Amino acid sequence: MPQQKKQPDGVPAAPLANWMLETNEVTRLFLAANQIPGLINIAGGLPDPSTFLAQEVSEISARMIREHPNQTMGYGPIEGLPALRECIAARYSKGSLKLTSDNVLVTTSGMQGLDLIGKVLLDPGDLVAGQFPTYLGALDAWRPRQPRYRNMDVHAADFDAVTEMQGAKFAYVVPNFSNPTGQLVNGSRRQELASGTLKTGTWLLEDDPYNTLNYDSPLPPSVIEILAEKSQNGTYAGTCLYLGTVSKQLAPGLRLGWIVASKEMITSLTLAKQGSDMCTSGITQLITLEALKSGLIEKLQPRVIDLYRKRRDVLCAAMKEYLADWFDWKTPEGGMFVWAKARNKCLDTDRLLRLAMEEKVCISPSSVFDSLGEHRSAIRLNFTLNSEDKLVEAIRRLAQATKRLVAEG
Amino acid sequence: MPQQKKQPDGVPAAPLANWMLETNEVTRLFLAANQIPGLINIAGGLPDPSTFLAQEVSEISARMIREHPNQTMGYGPIEGLPALRECIAARYSKGSLKLTSDNVLVTTSGMQGLDLIGKVLLDPGDLVAGQFPTYLGALDAWRPRQPRYRNMDVHAADFDAVTEMQGAKFAYVVPNFSNPTGQLVNGSRRQELASGTLKTGTWLLEDDPYNTLNYDSPLPPSVIEILAEKSQNGTYAGTCLYLGTVSKQLAPGLRLGWIVASKEMITSLTLAKQGSDMCTSGITQLITLEALKSGLIEKLQPRVIDLYRKRRDVLCAAMKEYLADWFDWKTPEGGMFVWAKARNKCLDTDRLLRLAMEEKVCISPSSVFDSLGEHRSAIRLNFTLNSEDKLVEAIRRLAQATKRLVAEG
Repeated sequence: MPQQKKQPDGVPAAPLANWMLETNEVTRLFLAANQIPGLINIAGGLPDPSTFLAQEVSEISARMIREHPNQTMGYGPIEGLPALRECIAARYSKGSLKLTSDNVLVTTSGMQGLDLIGKVLLDPGDLVAGQFPTYLGALDAWRPRQPRYRNMDVHAADFDAVTEMQGAKFAYVVPNFSNPTGQLVNGSRRQELASGTLKTGTWLLEDDPYNTLNYDSPLPPSVIEILAEKSQNGTYAGTCLYLGTVSKQLAPGLRLGWIVASKEMITSLTLAKQGSDMCTSGITQLITLEALKSGLIEKLQPRVIDLYRKRRDVLCAAMKEYLADWFDWKTPEGGMFVWAKARNKCLDTDRLLRLAMEEKVCISPSSVFDSLGEHRSAIRLNFTLNSEDKLVEAIRRLAQATKRLVAEG
Repeated sequence: MPQQKKQPDGVPAAPLANWMLETNEVTRLFLAANQIPGLINIAGGLPDPSTFLAQEVSEISARMIREHPNQTMGYGPIEGLPALRECIAARYSKGSLKLTSDNVLVTTSGMQGLDLIGKVLLDPGDLVAGQFPTYLGALDAWRPRQPRYRNMDVHAADFDAVTEMQGAKFAYVVPNFSNPTGQLVNGSRRQELASGTLKTGTWLLEDDPYNTLNYDSPLPPSVIEILAEKSQNGTYAGTCLYLGTVSKQLAPGLRLGWIVASKEMITSLTLAKQGSDMCTSGITQLITLEALKSGLIEKLQPRVIDLYRKRRDVLCAAMKEYLADWFDWKTPEGGMFVWAKARNKCLDTDRLLRLAMEEKVCISPSSVFDSLGEHRSAIRLNFTLNSEDKLVEAIRRLAQATKRLVAEG
């Protein structure tokens, strides 16, 4: 990024903030990819547009604005519309997890949830314990707060949550089909994470965008549910912050998410939201509320699962045919991605990306998910956006690029 | 705010970020005010809901989602939809100010524009030169970046922009009907601000939410227009950042704003937006685009101006009748507020607010607009939300509260 901009008369402009020096260049490359004719993009995390219920959402939108002009078109409460907060609280209340609307903040996308948590908890130099490789968007959200990171491998045989979480401001986990690895954190490791936050006081950030994209078997309880079992009193008051969104369940264009947390933490996050965008659009809030209440998401889900499960299987079959000489992977039980690790740890997937682009396929190299710089030989492949035919062709092209990379040595 | 939260088993939670210690309590008081039956609220900055064109917006919304499902319901470009960016660029291109879509970033509300500019330009301790008293929301947006402030009185007889702007990361001005004072920065002072940014390299942030709420006479050119005249080349490349929004022109519930700036600055702001909410909702973007293209805003404007002008006049007449013994003010030529200064500089308007609440009227005391702590004896009164009758009654009650405060001594 340019730190100094010359003006017409030669006076340099005041410099940008320090964190702007640390941004990566790969995002630009990804964006440029969409301009290349014939390129197949399996780098991103986009849903298939055929799953958008445009007719239904169009009708809901018109009705909500007509029937609730003040709530949709005016300023609303910073925390979100009371009816939507109540609906979300009721959705997650089960067993001993008892939530009220005081436990819910509506956010303008799950990404805003990450941004607000960074604002509320991080000062420069603060430590974040995270599963690495991790979600690129989380690193983007927290970069302006300039934290340090520590790798917390929840899948490691010797994982000890107290040791890993001690001294961190918060621990960041995506237990359901983590982005980018697609892995599931099993039930006993979730118990361990719950104990870790109880014993250390480190906040636990449970990011859960993919829970409905579950293709094979039922999910273990979420960490916030486990913590509720351990707590004594009625309303949730623990140190887990749970993030949800309708981006994968209904439509990313709504930019609608939520944070579930203790009432005190919601109050702090609300102060941060006040200075971020004041409140979320009443239009997108009431569309979401009506979609939740009318069962639109439940109606859509079986179709989405069926579509994506088939594509996952087609992608993995093509990988077995074309990529098995160079990569290892596990078939993910859910989510949007397959994570493939090169057998040769020296295989540079940043270089692979550049060759793949020449072969007209775009993939995500492991470097973008890893601010610790430890992963350079894996790739993330998306199976939700493209048709089965295109997925097979993408893998064929990727194999071609890999062959060239290996030949170059 | 609580810095330590005890968990059930007694381990304190990791502390919040430092800036969370600095938040004010007045916002909570304002929010609570809306729960008090019979209270008249002239503290806020809300539009009259009767100006919302719900029927038209409802129809546009349904049509946009139906006709453009991918653009409305999918992820869009971080910078905003190309057609909306082009429309905004064309709207501001006049005379020597030539803009392309590269000069425009769509933001999720004007507030997000302020937040992004703080992220891109401010490190802790950086200096911001601003008109004080200033917009409360700007202070909220920048608090997480922990800047210092310097008062820059653009109306002072001896105003010298170079001296005032030197050493600041940016200067913040609201030339059209500043919030809270309602004052207009005249043409020669705008020239002076333009010279200041050219000579010092300090970025100039021109926040312009109120330009359409202009009741008496034509506006002088904006600072970004003046700078374009001074620049030599075709496309705008200067150090002015201009903020616009549809909140006062159409509906705040759209949460739709924009930043106009040099292409390089838009690139930097886009990186910050990527980590804030990824992109603005395609639904609210296409509603805004259609409202701009179909002339909905121009259709609405005369009605809004007529309504608000009358209310301003009624408020000022009531003030003359009831408050003239204690306060001085100028009738604002536009915007949403009258700024009244107590003749007695020792009159504490924080105390006045508390008495006014007892009399069932809510006002904004000057302290909330002033992080420098220099203003304690003025009040901001809104005239856009309430009917003429209610405005008169509000001022009658406020006079009662003032009488009590003066009697208490």
